[in-house]
Amino acid sequence: MPVPAPHARVEIELGERSYSILIGSGLLQEPQALDALPRAASALIVTNSTVGPLYTAQLREALAGRHAQVHVLELPDGEVYKDWATLNLIFDALLSHGCDRKTVLYALGGGVVGDMTGFAAASYMRGVPFVQVPTTLLAQVDSSVGGKTAINHPLGKNMIGAFYQPQRVLCDLATLKTLPPRELSAGLAEVIKYGPIHDMDFLAWIEANLQALLAREPAALAHAVRRSCEIKALVVGQDEREAGLRAILNFGHTFGHAIESGLGYGEWLHGEAVGCGMVLAAELSQRLGGVDAAFVQRLTKLIEAAGLPVRGPALGAERYLALMRVDKKSEAGEIRFVVLDKPGSAVVRSAPDAMVRDVLAACCEPL
Amino acid sequence: MPVPAPHARVEIELGERSYSILIGSGLLQEPQALDALPRAASALIVTNSTVGPLYTAQLREALAGRHAQVHVLELPDGEVYKDWATLNLIFDALLSHGCDRKTVLYALGGGVVGDMTGFAAASYMRGVPFVQVPTTLLAQVDSSVGGKTAINHPLGKNMIGAFYQPQRVLCDLATLKTLPPRELSAGLAEVIKYGPIHDMDFLAWIEANLQALLAREPAALAHAVRRSCEIKALVVGQDEREAGLRAILNFGHTFGHAIESGLGYGEWLHGEAVGCGMVLAAELSQRLGGVDAAFVQRLTKLIEAAGLPVRGPALGAERYLALMRVDKKSEAGEIRFVVLDKPGSAVVRSAPDAMVRDVLAACCEPL
Repeated sequence: MPVPAPHARVEIELGERSYSILIGSGLLQEPQALDALPRAASALIVTNSTVGPLYTAQLREALAGRHAQVHVLELPDGEVYKDWATLNLIFDALLSHGCDRKTVLYALGGGVVGDMTGFAAASYMRGVPFVQVPTTLLAQVDSSVGGKTAINHPLGKNMIGAFYQPQRVLCDLATLKTLPPRELSAGLAEVIKYGPIHDMDFLAWIEANLQALLAREPAALAHAVRRSCEIKALVVGQDEREAGLRAILNFGHTFGHAIESGLGYGEWLHGEAVGCGMVLAAELSQRLGGVDAAFVQRLTKLIEAAGLPVRGPALGAERYLALMRVDKKSEAGEIRFVVLDKPGSAVVRSAPDAMVRDVLAACCEPL
Repeated sequence: MPVPAPHARVEIELGERSYSILIGSGLLQEPQALDALPRAASALIVTNSTVGPLYTAQLREALAGRHAQVHVLELPDGEVYKDWATLNLIFDALLSHGCDRKTVLYALGGGVVGDMTGFAAASYMRGVPFVQVPTTLLAQVDSSVGGKTAINHPLGKNMIGAFYQPQRVLCDLATLKTLPPRELSAGLAEVIKYGPIHDMDFLAWIEANLQALLAREPAALAHAVRRSCEIKALVVGQDEREAGLRAILNFGHTFGHAIESGLGYGEWLHGEAVGCGMVLAAELSQRLGGVDAAFVQRLTKLIEAAGLPVRGPALGAERYLALMRVDKKSEAGEIRFVVLDKPGSAVVRSAPDAMVRDVLAACCEPL
């Protein structure tokens, strides 16, 4: 399928589960962005009460002619709704509309909508096709790529879910114009992440172009989204089900999940928690000998300049440790951290509790 | 791994998701039945309040030495509990015990326990290993083999689930000794099913050995379970995700699901509804020209002799049709039936509503 010139395309190579990510401005208004996707009698657009009013009409129009019936479900907006009760609204809609095994789900929104719609698609009749249409920077560079879907459980984030690949991801950069500044920063956290774990040149590029990104200049956003997706594609293509390598994409997330869970989901945005979590993970990496203090300082400065928190909230070390022990990477109660063994390279390993306590004492507000 | 002489082994060939079904009396008491399975720090046995008191202690003993911690969760017994609330009890147990990605789930019970434990294993942390230990005939010959897992939704049976393969299936025939007669008959419905859809010799064998099966003679049960699993393995191996061929395993299930759903789950056992559903599906097959009246009579006689209902309950034709339209095989509102194109061979096809109404009028109690 030919892609109009200004658009980029990143391929995720996963055998029979391979798919394309299209990146460009105005994709939502281009029916050819959907070429070669399955045609079915019915489709369900799942969105939320913030994004829906802005972009549902555009997507509906692009889908006219592909599906005889296009249903829309607007979920409440927010991480606090990423739970079973809200997920069940999707199943209720699918069943009450008589949707079948060929019905296509479109996830129009940020990471929460994408994660829930993806898990609903994975589970409805044991699997129906779905398309990701991420409208936040965070979802475009992270959650909509790679097939991780999930809901939260009161005892842990993303604890219930599936590895389930979309048929396509459409990153329409035009949708980022309406993104609140706080969410733009949260997305930049995941963009920045790809530097320390894999590509120091990209880190330098982000440092040089941070103001252009914060000003939402299309060329800068396009490069940031494209390079982030390329790196993610490279990692996911080698380890779809996170047996090993893929875990490095969780740099900053072990501490970050503890922050989100400890404060209550929705208090800090996921990207904010990851931004701060990367500072803590970098500090731990330094203590383990992977990077020097100058690197930690450099990364911290960039995260702060992107508008993200760099001091952990006052949860107390014991609570941090308890929350991290239920992280999905933990094994038999031992916390597995993603740390840098050198700038541009990450590994998964454990660390002595005492060292983790030192990091928490150095980087978090006192209780 | 060498299997002790009296035990049979059926291999399910699914590439990296391949696994073995072991069939024999006393398997639960043989730790070597678990050889080559993943060792993990922790395990969770999921069972129900009927089966648990009978067999949990045996399984626990067999697992001692494999897992440092073996937790047990007893669910309430019955199809009515195959819902999200009960599934969530499994997640609660896993999270409150700090279970991780390597924790092994053991499903000890019938189809409901197997389906829910399998879906929990598929979804917990996006997938942990599990072992099926089916203790009903129905689960041994059907639900524990093939990787279909699911829970019910108020608007439809098995609507939410996953294709997720176990690491192994242990069919201990000794556990069938405690099975209530009604459940033995329900299991025989699925055993009988393999005849008309694939193997007329097996159908003749069942007819000749029905009394031995009803008397639970071990040699007869062993052959019935083994041959059923072999046929299912053959079909599933060619079509893991039910794109085509696999649907023939649902012979009798389209009508059967409507009966279960229309009466309210749990009123009739699944196998009872399938037994009766096979009579209706055979009747429809005759009207479509695949089999003759003598065949329908022969099958009906066997189903009745197995202790199963052969007249559909009085739901009314419109309710039957409405319920069947939400069946997972339906496409764009058209019901897809599994019918016999000749004795020993099944296909999936639609049928005129008028013909289905005639079948319902002929085979169901009047409203």
